[in-house]
Amino acid sequence: MADYKTDIEIAQECEKQKITEIAKVAGVDDQYLELYGNYKAKIDYQMLKDKANEPDGKLILVTAITPTPAGEGKTTTSVGLADGMRKIGKKTVVALREPSLGPVFGIKGGAAGGGYAQVVPMEDINLHFTGDFHAIGAANNLLAAMLDNHIQQGNALGIDPKQITWKRAVDMNDRQLRHVIDGIGGKMQGVPREDGFEITVASEIMAILCLSSDITDLKERLSRIVVGYTYSGEPVTAKDLKAQGAMAALLKDALKPNLVQTLEGTPALIHGGPFANIAHGCNSITATKMALKLSDYTITEAGFAADLGAEKFLDIKCRVAGLTPSAVVVVATVRALKYHGGVAKNDLNEENLEALKAGLPNLLQHVGNIKDVYGLPCVVAINAFPTDTKAELDMVEAECKKLGVNVALSEVWAKGGEGGKALAEEVVRLCEEPNHFKQSYELDLSIEEKLEAICKKIYHADGVELTAGAKKQLTKLEELGYGNLPICMAKTQYSFSDNPKLLGAPKGFTVTVRNLKVSAGAGFIVALTGDIMTMPGLPKVPAAEKIDIDENGVITGLF
Amino acid sequence: MADYKTDIEIAQECEKQKITEIAKVAGVDDQYLELYGNYKAKIDYQMLKDKANEPDGKLILVTAITPTPAGEGKTTTSVGLADGMRKIGKKTVVALREPSLGPVFGIKGGAAGGGYAQVVPMEDINLHFTGDFHAIGAANNLLAAMLDNHIQQGNALGIDPKQITWKRAVDMNDRQLRHVIDGIGGKMQGVPREDGFEITVASEIMAILCLSSDITDLKERLSRIVVGYTYSGEPVTAKDLKAQGAMAALLKDALKPNLVQTLEGTPALIHGGPFANIAHGCNSITATKMALKLSDYTITEAGFAADLGAEKFLDIKCRVAGLTPSAVVVVATVRALKYHGGVAKNDLNEENLEALKAGLPNLLQHVGNIKDVYGLPCVVAINAFPTDTKAELDMVEAECKKLGVNVALSEVWAKGGEGGKALAEEVVRLCEEPNHFKQSYELDLSIEEKLEAICKKIYHADGVELTAGAKKQLTKLEELGYGNLPICMAKTQYSFSDNPKLLGAPKGFTVTVRNLKVSAGAGFIVALTGDIMTMPGLPKVPAAEKIDIDENGVITGLF
Repeated sequence: MADYKTDIEIAQECEKQKITEIAKVAGVDDQYLELYGNYKAKIDYQMLKDKANEPDGKLILVTAITPTPAGEGKTTTSVGLADGMRKIGKKTVVALREPSLGPVFGIKGGAAGGGYAQVVPMEDINLHFTGDFHAIGAANNLLAAMLDNHIQQGNALGIDPKQITWKRAVDMNDRQLRHVIDGIGGKMQGVPREDGFEITVASEIMAILCLSSDITDLKERLSRIVVGYTYSGEPVTAKDLKAQGAMAALLKDALKPNLVQTLEGTPALIHGGPFANIAHGCNSITATKMALKLSDYTITEAGFAADLGAEKFLDIKCRVAGLTPSAVVVVATVRALKYHGGVAKNDLNEENLEALKAGLPNLLQHVGNIKDVYGLPCVVAINAFPTDTKAELDMVEAECKKLGVNVALSEVWAKGGEGGKALAEEVVRLCEEPNHFKQSYELDLSIEEKLEAICKKIYHADGVELTAGAKKQLTKLEELGYGNLPICMAKTQYSFSDNPKLLGAPKGFTVTVRNLKVSAGAGFIVALTGDIMTMPGLPKVPAAEKIDIDENGVITGLF
Repeated sequence: MADYKTDIEIAQECEKQKITEIAKVAGVDDQYLELYGNYKAKIDYQMLKDKANEPDGKLILVTAITPTPAGEGKTTTSVGLADGMRKIGKKTVVALREPSLGPVFGIKGGAAGGGYAQVVPMEDINLHFTGDFHAIGAANNLLAAMLDNHIQQGNALGIDPKQITWKRAVDMNDRQLRHVIDGIGGKMQGVPREDGFEITVASEIMAILCLSSDITDLKERLSRIVVGYTYSGEPVTAKDLKAQGAMAALLKDALKPNLVQTLEGTPALIHGGPFANIAHGCNSITATKMALKLSDYTITEAGFAADLGAEKFLDIKCRVAGLTPSAVVVVATVRALKYHGGVAKNDLNEENLEALKAGLPNLLQHVGNIKDVYGLPCVVAINAFPTDTKAELDMVEAECKKLGVNVALSEVWAKGGEGGKALAEEVVRLCEEPNHFKQSYELDLSIEEKLEAICKKIYHADGVELTAGAKKQLTKLEELGYGNLPICMAKTQYSFSDNPKLLGAPKGFTVTVRNLKVSAGAGFIVALTGDIMTMPGLPKVPAAEKIDIDENGVITGLF
C-alpha cells in the first residue's frame, strides 16, 4: 500500500478559514456567534426563533450497513457528500455528532471523518471541543451528588438506596468504574450502596440536550428525569431534588450548536452525541434545525447501522422534532460486505464474489427497511477502497438495482468533495422523488406492540420475548403513565439481531428484552437486550499511548 | 440592613467591554488572543516567550487572617485594590484563581469577588469558564483509567493494587465518592480494590498546571507523577504508563491563562485554582508572569490565610518561579477578629473592644510572619462593614502600628475602585520600601527540619511530631530521592494549629504529621495533618437548589 498521510497530518495541513468567514458562508449573523478561538464558534439558539418563518432546506440522512472491523466510513461519507454538494453548486451544511473522549483514547480513535473528508480543527473536535460533554457530565454528576446528599441529610423523600437508577458519568473508557460500591467509610461518608458509572455519551442528559428545543424545554425535561424510586415505589425526579435549575444553568452554553468547517470550507454544525446503542444516537435537534434554516441541503448522520441509528433518527428524533427527511444514504464498503459474507479480516483485499453475494443481504435489508418501512428515497454509497474490483462493484450495483436503488461510488476519502459529486447528484435527484415517510410504529400502541414492530419490521426477527423482570417493569411503566413514549432500543450494533455473532441478514431469531427503563426526561423507554455496555473499557494498548504534543502545542498520534 | 443588590445582580448590570478592548488595555496583541465568546479569552503562552526581555512589574500578594464564618473578603479586596490602583493612575492587572464548581453548588458559593469589586462575566467564571478544570479532571481520570487498565491487561509493571495512590477526580462536592470499592463484578470488570475520588482542585494535575512554565515543562512534570508502587516497592510513574503525551494534549488549552475584566474594566487573569489546604493554593505561574509583563503592578492572592496560602505562595510558588513580591496585603474584618476573640456569630454586629483585642493576635501573628520571617513590606486592609465602629477601627490601627504596619480601610465592596484608593496608595508606597525577601526554609534541609521550620516559624508551634507511619514514609521518600523538595502542608485552614478549634493565635501546641506523600510532578511533598478532606460534601440545603436560569439564559441564585 502507498504511504498515505495520516488524518491528522492532512487536517493540520489544511489552511483553515476563520470561523467568522465560515459563518458568513452559512449566513449566520455576527450577533448569534460566540467565538471559541479562531476556528470554532457557538451559535445562539435565539437564531432559530428569529428565523422561525424562513423556509427549511431538505434533510438527508446518512446511515450504514451493520458495522464490521473492516469499517464503513459514515462520517467520512457525510463530510465528503456535503463537500460534493457544494461542488455541484448546492448550498449545504453538514450536521454531525461530537466525538467522545472514550473512543479517542481507546480503540476507535476520533470521529471527525477521514482522509480528505474531515472536519477541522480535528484535534480540538476530538478532544474537549467547546466543553459540551464536560458540561453534560457535570450536570449528570451534580444530580447524583444532590441525590446521595439528600439521603445522607435525612432522606425526607424516602428514597430507597436499592432502587436508585441514576448513575454518575465520566467521558472516559474506564471499566474500573462499571460497578462500584460507594458511600463507604462510616456515618459521615455517605450511604453505602451499589452504584456505577456510565460514559457521558450514555447519560440521559446527553439525550435530553439533543432532544430539547430551548432552555425552557431543557429545564422541563431535566425536571422529569427519574433518578430512582421511594420505598413505596414512587418515582423520584430531579425536580423533587430541586436540581433542574442548576443543571440547566450548567448546560446553558452546551445547548448551543457548534460551528466548524470541513477541509473544503463547508459549514459544519457539530453538536451532541448520544450513544446509538443505549440512547438515540443522533446529533441535536437544535443543530439539525439550524442547518435546515441555513442551507438548501442538510447532511446529517446517525450512529451505527440503519437498524439502530436510522431507526431512532426516524422513529424518535424526527417524531419529536417534526422532521421529514428527503433522502437516505446507506453507506457500505465492499470489504465490509465480504466480511458479512464470511471472509476473515486479513483476506479482505482479495476479490471474492461469492462472499460478497453472501454478505449483500445485510445491505439490501437495510435498504429495504428505509424504502419499504419508512417510505423514503434511498441511495447506496460505496465508500471506495483501492482493493475493490470492478466485478465486485458491478455486483453491488446489480443487486441494489433489483430493489430500485442506485449505487454511487464515493471517493471522498481520497479526493474530498470532488470524489463525492456522483453521490451528490443522486441525492439531489432523490430529493425530488415521491416521499411517503411514516414511522415504523405509532405511539399509541402498547409498549409490547411497539417492541414487536421494531423487532419484526426493522430487525426481521420472528418476535420479541420479555424476561420476567422486563414484564414486571413493563407493567410498572405503563401504570406510571409512561406507556405512550417511543422505544429506544439498546441492542448490539454488530447484528440485526441481539446476538453480535449473527452477521449478514439473520433469520429465525427472537429478540430478548432483559429490562425496560424509562428516560422520562429524554422522553423514551430504553429496552435493554443482550449485554449492552454503558461504560466501555480500554484495550491492551490504548490509543492514548500514541498521542503526544510538542513544545509548540502540535498534537500527534490522534487518529 | 438596607436592601442590597446581590452580587449576581450587580454583575449582570455591568456594561462589560468586549474582551478585545480589555486586551488592548492590557497590551495583549491580537495574535496571542483566543476568544471564548465576547467576554473571555485565552492568551497563548507564546506571548511570555516573546516578551522575555521586557521588564516585569511589581508583584503584590493579597492574603488574609485565619478564616471564620464571618468572612474576610480576600478576592473582593484583590479585585477592588486592582481597580483602586488604576484609579490612582497605575497600570495594574489582577491575577486570581478560578472557582471550583464544588463550592459554587455547596455552601461557599462562587469566587469572583463581591459587591462592586467583582470579575465578570461572573456566571461564566463560576460555572465552566473556559473548561480548564474539566480538562484537568479528564487528564486526571485518563491516567487513572490507564493505570487500572494496565493491571487488568496483565500488569506487566507489577503494580500493587493495595499501593495505588492516584485517585480519580470530579469537580463536585460529592462525599459519596470519598471512599469506594471499584472494579467489582467479575473477571472482565477491572480489579476490585479500595479507591476514592478527590475534587478536581485537589488533583496533583491542578498543582502541576499551575507550576508549569510551558508545555515541555508540563509534560515532564506529568511524566514524573507517582501513581503508586510495585509489589517490590518501586514507584510507578505516569511515564511508565505512557500517559503523559495524551494528558498533555488534553491540557494544551487549559495551560493558557484566561483574560476577563473587573466591573471597572481592569484586566484580570484568572487561571488555575489548586486547593490551599492540600495543594499550594495559588493561581498559575504562567498567569502571574504574564500579568507582570503586562502591568506595573500585579495584584494576586493565595488561598485561605497567610499560614497556608501565603506560606505556600512564598515558599513554593515564588521559589519555583523565581519571583519576589514587593508587598503583601493582609485582609481582615473587624467582625472576624471579634469572632477570633470569642464572640458568637450572631453577636458580631455589636461593638466589642474586649473581644476585638482578644482576637487581634491572629492578625498580628500573620503580619509578623510576613514582616519578620519573609522580610516583606506589609499592610493590613480592613474590609469595611457598616457595623464597624470608629473605636474598633482605631484599636486595629493602633495595634498594627506597634509592629510598624499601616492599616488601610478598604471600602471596595460598597464603592468599587474608589473605595480601594487608600489601600492602593499604601501599596504603592510599600513597593518602594526595602525588601528582604527570604523563604522560611532552605531546600537542602531534611524533610523533618523543613517541617519544623514551617511549624515553628509560621504556625508558632512548639514543634512537630510524626506518627510512626509518617516516619516510615519519610525514610522511604528520602531514600527515593525526594528529600530536597519543598513541603506542601495539608492543614486545617481554621487555625494556625492543626486543630480547627484553636482560634486566635494559639500557643503551646505540637503539630502532628499523620502522613507524607510525594507529588513528584508538582514537585513537593504533601504533609498531612489532622483530617484534611480532599472531597467535600454538600450541606443540608445545597446552594444548587437556589440556582435557576430563565428562557433567555439569564442565571439567578448564583452567589
